Amino acid sequence: MEKKGLTYRDAGVDIDAQDEALRRIKELVESTRTAGVLADLGSFGGLFRPPIEGLAEPVLVASADGVGTKLKAAFASGIHDTVGRDLVNHCVNDILVQGARPLFFLDYVATGRLEPGVLASVVEGLAAGCRENGCALLGGETAEMPGFYADGEYDVAGFIVGLVDRGAVLDGSAVREGDLLIGLPSSGMHTNGFSLARKILFEIAGLGIDDPIDELGETVGEVLLAEHKSYLPALSGALGRMHALAHITGGGLTDNLPRVLPDGCAVRIDRAAWEVPALYRYLATRGGVEEDEMFRTFNMGIGMVAIVAPDEAAALERHLDEQDEAHLRIGEVVSGDQEVRYV
Amino acid sequence: MEKKGLTYRDAGVDIDAQDEALRRIKELVESTRTAGVLADLGSFGGLFRPPIEGLAEPVLVASADGVGTKLKAAFASGIHDTVGRDLVNHCVNDILVQGARPLFFLDYVATGRLEPGVLASVVEGLAAGCRENGCALLGGETAEMPGFYADGEYDVAGFIVGLVDRGAVLDGSAVREGDLLIGLPSSGMHTNGFSLARKILFEIAGLGIDDPIDELGETVGEVLLAEHKSYLPALSGALGRMHALAHITGGGLTDNLPRVLPDGCAVRIDRAAWEVPALYRYLATRGGVEEDEMFRTFNMGIGMVAIVAPDEAAALERHLDEQDEAHLRIGEVVSGDQEVRYV
Repeated sequence: MEKKGLTYRDAGVDIDAQDEALRRIKELVESTRTAGVLADLGSFGGLFRPPIEGLAEPVLVASADGVGTKLKAAFASGIHDTVGRDLVNHCVNDILVQGARPLFFLDYVATGRLEPGVLASVVEGLAAGCRENGCALLGGETAEMPGFYADGEYDVAGFIVGLVDRGAVLDGSAVREGDLLIGLPSSGMHTNGFSLARKILFEIAGLGIDDPIDELGETVGEVLLAEHKSYLPALSGALGRMHALAHITGGGLTDNLPRVLPDGCAVRIDRAAWEVPALYRYLATRGGVEEDEMFRTFNMGIGMVAIVAPDEAAALERHLDEQDEAHLRIGEVVSGDQEVRYV
Repeated sequence: MEKKGLTYRDAGVDIDAQDEALRRIKELVESTRTAGVLADLGSFGGLFRPPIEGLAEPVLVASADGVGTKLKAAFASGIHDTVGRDLVNHCVNDILVQGARPLFFLDYVATGRLEPGVLASVVEGLAAGCRENGCALLGGETAEMPGFYADGEYDVAGFIVGLVDRGAVLDGSAVREGDLLIGLPSSGMHTNGFSLARKILFEIAGLGIDDPIDELGETVGEVLLAEHKSYLPALSGALGRMHALAHITGGGLTDNLPRVLPDGCAVRIDRAAWEVPALYRYLATRGGVEEDEMFRTFNMGIGMVAIVAPDEAAALERHLDEQDEAHLRIGEVVSGDQEVRYV
């Protein structure tokens, strides 16, 4: 055997392991194929024919996001097939609030040392999320960056593109004083507030990822990895009934609702309209976190808010009932300066 | 002063510093605005009206990418305003090879501790790259992930969407035996081969980021941070003359040319057609890297390859001359099994 000299592999990049993972990923990607997809993964970029027939003025809506430090819970628990669905659903919700339905999604996964099994698990979650939202996983980038990420760790980002007819864009301009706020329950912390939650659970409460939280009847890992749900199935058929939709992400109800309020409007939120989930009461108590801070860090049990004219509320609620989606009237639009008042 | 309890800031997320950076970023984003952009940054997702008028069958082409370990050179040198342009140009080139012109770009920047000045420098590079390619910086995500990235370090990913009429998609299916390969010089290592180059320069040669490399007349930092160029300005007006375009990224000429070759075709590359830049000769010598490995790790001086019918070559070369773009006939398409033969 000749000495073959320094290779790219010696520098920490294992091209064969990467190829094996890419083969598995390609199968997962295939499982998300929709009618618009034109090209195979092997090409430089994904090709997609948007279904613009019948639209007066097609508008693309795009958004980028990550999972944040929720990933640390995946690393600690060794469960890697849920963060992908979190990410896709987060992105789907972000463009849904502008009235758009998803066309395609691309991922970026960066890691220190490639672990093909872990990578494939991440993509399993991404592909599942894409399939459930009728969204093609059109491509992505897997970056092996030795000396950059800790062994066994990775970051994942997602990019989504959706389509809406310009006349159907939801931008909050139709919101009026007297409109009602209909809140849809969240399915856990979604993808926000994890830095604070981890500090409280691990540092202050001294818990480990597999420890039970008696007050909640769940382990720390179960609480942290609860999946961020997609509101597309529940809301897709009722977008025309709304004046605005707000996805309650980082900043909570406090910072996200003002983003869809026109000048002269504020919202009044009735704190008694829903019971804040036990998780947030536990975090507030254990962490000594004040209520204001809780409401601008966590979703507090409400993941999406629809703002509707009073005479549309009942029809939207019937639609949500038909979709087996829970809903709560949590407040109303009042006169004010694009702020949230809790009463 | 009351003790206000634990806040999100205590957990390592500085929302005010983030807001300040976002204000600067918003100005930079504004500087990239094109006719298609419909929404402001504050909304949940960016809105873009694609210019589909006159296209028989509009097709979107999307690609995701990162900068890889080239970022380590930015960290070491403290120069953060070039990697953004690298990333945009890389993405632009990736969709250009399918015949698409860019519409918009989104970024994902993740960091451990937010340094607003550094972040703004990164976005300056992204915005400059977008402006130079007529591409809107439509949005993005800045993720502050304490305990995830080392202080002063970050990762950046990009996502691009372009437009092409279906009949103008370049997919290599038109490539025929006898076609000529016209190579366009690279502007350095672009964004590939950095793990190996860093190992050779820092570990084997024992150099520091500011050390001169006598053989090259440049410092290590200058060599590593040379910007990845965009081939859009040179090639945009001549896409109709080509049978295929290949962007020479990870895998080099060896792995990227086969991606655009149809069944029954191979390429013969004339190694004497161009002088491999001194940088690669230096790296091969210092690292003891064999030529095969060099050609599948680095671009070896050729950043883009156009494959054209013999009777179109002269017209393409005239076009490139008019654009002040250098070009070299580096080989031809021969009968074979989608491989690259160096002669």
